Amino acid sequence: MLKIGIIGAGRIGKVHCESIMRYVKDATVKTVADPYLNEETVEWAKSLGINGFTKDYKEVLKDKEIDAVLICSSTDTHSKISLEAIEAGKHVFCEKPIDHDVKKIKEVKEALEKHPEIKYQVGFNRRYDHNFKAAREAVKAGKIGELNVLKICSRDPAAPPVGYIKVSGGIFLDMTIHDFDMVRFMSGEEVEEVFAYGAVLVDPAIGEAGDIDTAVISMKLESGALAVIDNCRRASYGYDQRVEAFGSLGQVAIKNDTDSSAEISDKDGVHSEKPLLFFLERYMQAYVAEISEFIKCIVNNEKPDTGVECGLAPVLIGLAAKKSLAENRPVKIAEIKKEFGLK
Amino acid sequence: MLKIGIIGAGRIGKVHCESIMRYVKDATVKTVADPYLNEETVEWAKSLGINGFTKDYKEVLKDKEIDAVLICSSTDTHSKISLEAIEAGKHVFCEKPIDHDVKKIKEVKEALEKHPEIKYQVGFNRRYDHNFKAAREAVKAGKIGELNVLKICSRDPAAPPVGYIKVSGGIFLDMTIHDFDMVRFMSGEEVEEVFAYGAVLVDPAIGEAGDIDTAVISMKLESGALAVIDNCRRASYGYDQRVEAFGSLGQVAIKNDTDSSAEISDKDGVHSEKPLLFFLERYMQAYVAEISEFIKCIVNNEKPDTGVECGLAPVLIGLAAKKSLAENRPVKIAEIKKEFGLK
Amino acid sequence: MLKIGIIGAGRIGKVHCESIMRYVKDATVKTVADPYLNEETVEWAKSLGINGFTKDYKEVLKDKEIDAVLICSSTDTHSKISLEAIEAGKHVFCEKPIDHDVKKIKEVKEALEKHPEIKYQVGFNRRYDHNFKAAREAVKAGKIGELNVLKICSRDPAAPPVGYIKVSGGIFLDMTIHDFDMVRFMSGEEVEEVFAYGAVLVDPAIGEAGDIDTAVISMKLESGALAVIDNCRRASYGYDQRVEAFGSLGQVAIKNDTDSSAEISDKDGVHSEKPLLFFLERYMQAYVAEISEFIKCIVNNEKPDTGVECGLAPVLIGLAAKKSLAENRPVKIAEIKKEFGLK
Amino acid sequence: MLKIGIIGAGRIGKVHCESIMRYVKDATVKTVADPYLNEETVEWAKSLGINGFTKDYKEVLKDKEIDAVLICSSTDTHSKISLEAIEAGKHVFCEKPIDHDVKKIKEVKEALEKHPEIKYQVGFNRRYDHNFKAAREAVKAGKIGELNVLKICSRDPAAPPVGYIKVSGGIFLDMTIHDFDMVRFMSGEEVEEVFAYGAVLVDPAIGEAGDIDTAVISMKLESGALAVIDNCRRASYGYDQRVEAFGSLGQVAIKNDTDSSAEISDKDGVHSEKPLLFFLERYMQAYVAEISEFIKCIVNNEKPDTGVECGLAPVLIGLAAKKSLAENRPVKIAEIKKEFGLK
Repeated sequence: MLKIGIIGAGRIGKVHCESIMRYVKDATVKTVADPYLNEETVEWAKSLGINGFTKDYKEVLKDKEIDAVLICSSTDTHSKISLEAIEAGKHVFCEKPIDHDVKKIKEVKEALEKHPEIKYQVGFNRRYDHNFKAAREAVKAGKIGELNVLKICSRDPAAPPVGYIKVSGGIFLDMTIHDFDMVRFMSGEEVEEVFAYGAVLVDPAIGEAGDIDTAVISMKLESGALAVIDNCRRASYGYDQRVEAFGSLGQVAIKNDTDSSAEISDKDGVHSEKPLLFFLERYMQAYVAEISEFIKCIVNNEKPDTGVECGLAPVLIGLAAKKSLAENRPVKIAEIKKEFGLK
Repeated sequence: MLKIGIIGAGRIGKVHCESIMRYVKDATVKTVADPYLNEETVEWAKSLGINGFTKDYKEVLKDKEIDAVLICSSTDTHSKISLEAIEAGKHVFCEKPIDHDVKKIKEVKEALEKHPEIKYQVGFNRRYDHNFKAAREAVKAGKIGELNVLKICSRDPAAPPVGYIKVSGGIFLDMTIHDFDMVRFMSGEEVEEVFAYGAVLVDPAIGEAGDIDTAVISMKLESGALAVIDNCRRASYGYDQRVEAFGSLGQVAIKNDTDSSAEISDKDGVHSEKPLLFFLERYMQAYVAEISEFIKCIVNNEKPDTGVECGLAPVLIGLAAKKSLAENRPVKIAEIKKEFGLK
Repeated sequence: MLKIGIIGAGRIGKVHCESIMRYVKDATVKTVADPYLNEETVEWAKSLGINGFTKDYKEVLKDKEIDAVLICSSTDTHSKISLEAIEAGKHVFCEKPIDHDVKKIKEVKEALEKHPEIKYQVGFNRRYDHNFKAAREAVKAGKIGELNVLKICSRDPAAPPVGYIKVSGGIFLDMTIHDFDMVRFMSGEEVEEVFAYGAVLVDPAIGEAGDIDTAVISMKLESGALAVIDNCRRASYGYDQRVEAFGSLGQVAIKNDTDSSAEISDKDGVHSEKPLLFFLERYMQAYVAEISEFIKCIVNNEKPDTGVECGLAPVLIGLAAKKSLAENRPVKIAEIKKEFGLK
Repeated sequence: MLKIGIIGAGRIGKVHCESIMRYVKDATVKTVADPYLNEETVEWAKSLGINGFTKDYKEVLKDKEIDAVLICSSTDTHSKISLEAIEAGKHVFCEKPIDHDVKKIKEVKEALEKHPEIKYQVGFNRRYDHNFKAAREAVKAGKIGELNVLKICSRDPAAPPVGYIKVSGGIFLDMTIHDFDMVRFMSGEEVEEVFAYGAVLVDPAIGEAGDIDTAVISMKLESGALAVIDNCRRASYGYDQRVEAFGSLGQVAIKNDTDSSAEISDKDGVHSEKPLLFFLERYMQAYVAEISEFIKCIVNNEKPDTGVECGLAPVLIGLAAKKSLAENRPVKIAEIKKEFGLK
């Protein structure tokens, strides 16, 4: 039985705790660390059968019994704690993004190169979603032939508070980063060049905060295939997450999930349910699946598919998109890499 | 925290154990009773945090700490253990059917009338399914106006072994019983008369065992509305469970669930996934929901919606259908009731 | 170029005129006969390029140049004019039903046996509809294996005036007759026995006129397969015409047609268009296709698929359904045949 | 009754002849002009009731009885014949594009300014398609609120011969021009800036001919809304023409049309028909509707919605896209306009 330490008991930390305690056979949560740990959280954790608590995550790193940590703390601590955890010999599941700063991701990458025995997985949950996975499997199995055009639609139900927007790193690093990961996941390819159009159509305050809320980002992939993402921070009808992969032999497309399949026909038309509104609801199965995958990799001594390089690549694409928007020109990923001495 | 005893640790008993231990906040399983209890089951239960075991369910009934029991043993023991449990003052969740013998269900009903403090729920899981529930809510909310025609399609992916068929009580009491319950649930009405056509089209051995494998059963409801169920023991494409309720203002219809929404378009057409094949997969959410409902009723001292009368009515309809098929004539439920001195 | 006479220039007669003048290469309408022929109709016909008019259909039958007639007059004249036209050596396309009186259909049948050179087609337009035809082709091609259960849903957008209902012959001969034809068409089988439930749920005046407005009719087919039709005289959401054929290898199902595929997602859900409301709109392509088929049969000297026997069989099933409803018992088609000395 | 002259009796000219002769009440085709007029075409036209023929379109222009002409000749003659027809006082329906040369379109525009009495319509048939029209109506009616992102997917079933590609003016002026028109039609806005990615993924010979076969074109509209078109010259599953318009209150989306709604479920999945393969089949209703609209405008003395400016704008966008692709930078429409002295 693997022993896990959870670092950060916010919303997503709690989701992972529940997944492990309820669904993952080969692992248990030994300790929950959170600087703001309160009675309520402790009680909640105890109800799941968790009995270790601390306000200092370093205790988790020191604990010889703990095999792996889940880093669910605030984004600005991800890379630092990653480095410390690797140093302490813990396997690491790190919530996305590892960092917005490429240099810090590079440090994590280099630390991992020195510690090849450490399993490191980044929390790109959509890769483990039943719909996206089915689409990826169709592409991989050759059902659409050679990929020609990949289209990703990704819209949030409602914009986050402007306070959040201001520290988010901008839409491309905060929201589109998932979609950049999906481009890589669905295509199995790297992005070569990006061109981004953006607009402030949802809330002028987002524009005043220096960000955009609506975007269309087109991309060239290494095979010559094209990709396009469209984003919006607000969709009145729910959380809209779809993909279409088109190729020489055909197309695979996925739809949104709904609460039920009930369809009502009346004098005004035919009415069915809108997509699930909340990302936790939409991706609950995916969260369980990604943690199960992480534990499986440790148990079977396999390298996670969603490793540190999956944490780096979308940030590079995001930075290229940011530059493209700012300078209104296509930007090659190679240009961003060069800035950071990456090859 | 309510303490639960599980009587019968077969497939469905295990499903309920997991639901309670993982999802139900106000209850825990204290003891698992099964005459064939083995090492494997004990180990499995322990991994869930269950520590009480016995081969004799009477120990569960004697245990003063246990508040409620789940009767998941073989069908022929349901009514007997129900009676003993009621006598012992335990709340009872009883898997369907309570019995195939109306007299025995009557005994349970009478016992409950003497013990109005006991909560008794029958395991008609489909009532708690997200799709059926959404359709029922649309009907209840008046979205289709007055109900005119209710249509239920219910097909199993594959016929059970003929050995099972022989002791099943026949298709109407074994398989259609769920659909008879759905007629009552969806319409909120009682059935008045039944006419059944049956055929042996899947496997001649089923006919040799004295049963049928395909049926169309039409019904008159008390309001004058009509209903029809079509059943088959085998559907090549999976577990097919749909309903359409049509009324003066419109129609509500539900579809099957699938593994993913992936749709592949190629030179041969547009292809999507078939319905989920296995009932446990299809109704897992519903199993959790029905047990949660049972626990909630105990905690809040409410009468379960799916009470003993929901266990009786579908058996009466099933017996009417059986007689209708045998005598090739419509049969009133009143005729069956009279046979058993019910009114 | 075949020369056609149209007998009866009401709604459906006009539809056929337009089909022939616009779409059918090998035929032209020479004469339109209608006892109520008026200026408007003449003008309309002239705009299509038709120049022959009469109030007396007998002139059409006498006209040596006319090869074929379309009988679109009132139902009570269909069999009489059919007999006269056959006698006059004209090919006949007769709108459904040939008659409600089996004896009169028999007379037409016998007349045709004496004149095997005459092509006689009955106007069951749904057989030529793109959706029903696609479903039939799937069944015929063995895509669903052996047929097990055939389900037909057939609902009109709104009930006809009670005056019409009174002379309609009742729902089974007026409305369900199309669905009885569909049972034969989809299955390629004869019906052996019928059981009908009926109700008055749309309009009490229909009940006072001695008819019902809602029905569920179950049937046994000669292969042992089962069929069920559900009818209603009113569907708030449009003309609802669907079929599901289920068999040993799978199922084929068809949906309704709509004006457009536009789907609107908003905060209240996902909304699409209701089925087409009007039968002429829904089946316009089918009307053209059935007349084209009739002309093709004449030109190529082939027997129409939808011959006189297709006019007889649904009436027999309809009469059985009527008797079943009246006597609340299943009725064999053989019983009805015997009444009329048919075998 | 308006009298029409058809100039050019190729595929599309014939489509328009049939539409007018069969469906358009207030117009008839007096003369068909085609330099390659042959027996077959004459016979075909006569079967429709057309009796005037010439090899010289100038005879049509001289004919005082002719009210309007349809220019369906080869693309390189459209602007020249437009000018001559306007000069001759004929109303003009001109197949798209008016020309690839902006200067020539300008000449037509200027001629029309001098002859405001002339009705001039460009053949953008998709505007009259039932699906696109329903989507446009939803946008116009405010059902999606303010437009934010417009997405158009447009793929041909198969690439045309390379010989055609060479003289086509390139994918943007030949194929995407329809989609550029759809951007204007759906949004009711002008395009301000374009960025185009292109690739040769279908056939290397297309690349050798100096063209591309796959493209993703993103655009900024005057309101700040974004739009994106994806094109491919080959879709294995048919003619793929979809649109999604997303806005502040929701989304409207349209699907492709199919031959039938038949859906087959079997052990391998659920299978339905692919989109219609051929543009004439897909847009037949639209061709009738656009000609009816043209005739209606003449009869009612109204200005056609799809006027000469609808012929010019997409060419400007196409040229901007071409330049964007060539220079790998976003190009403003204003830049193209300036080149041609347009404002």
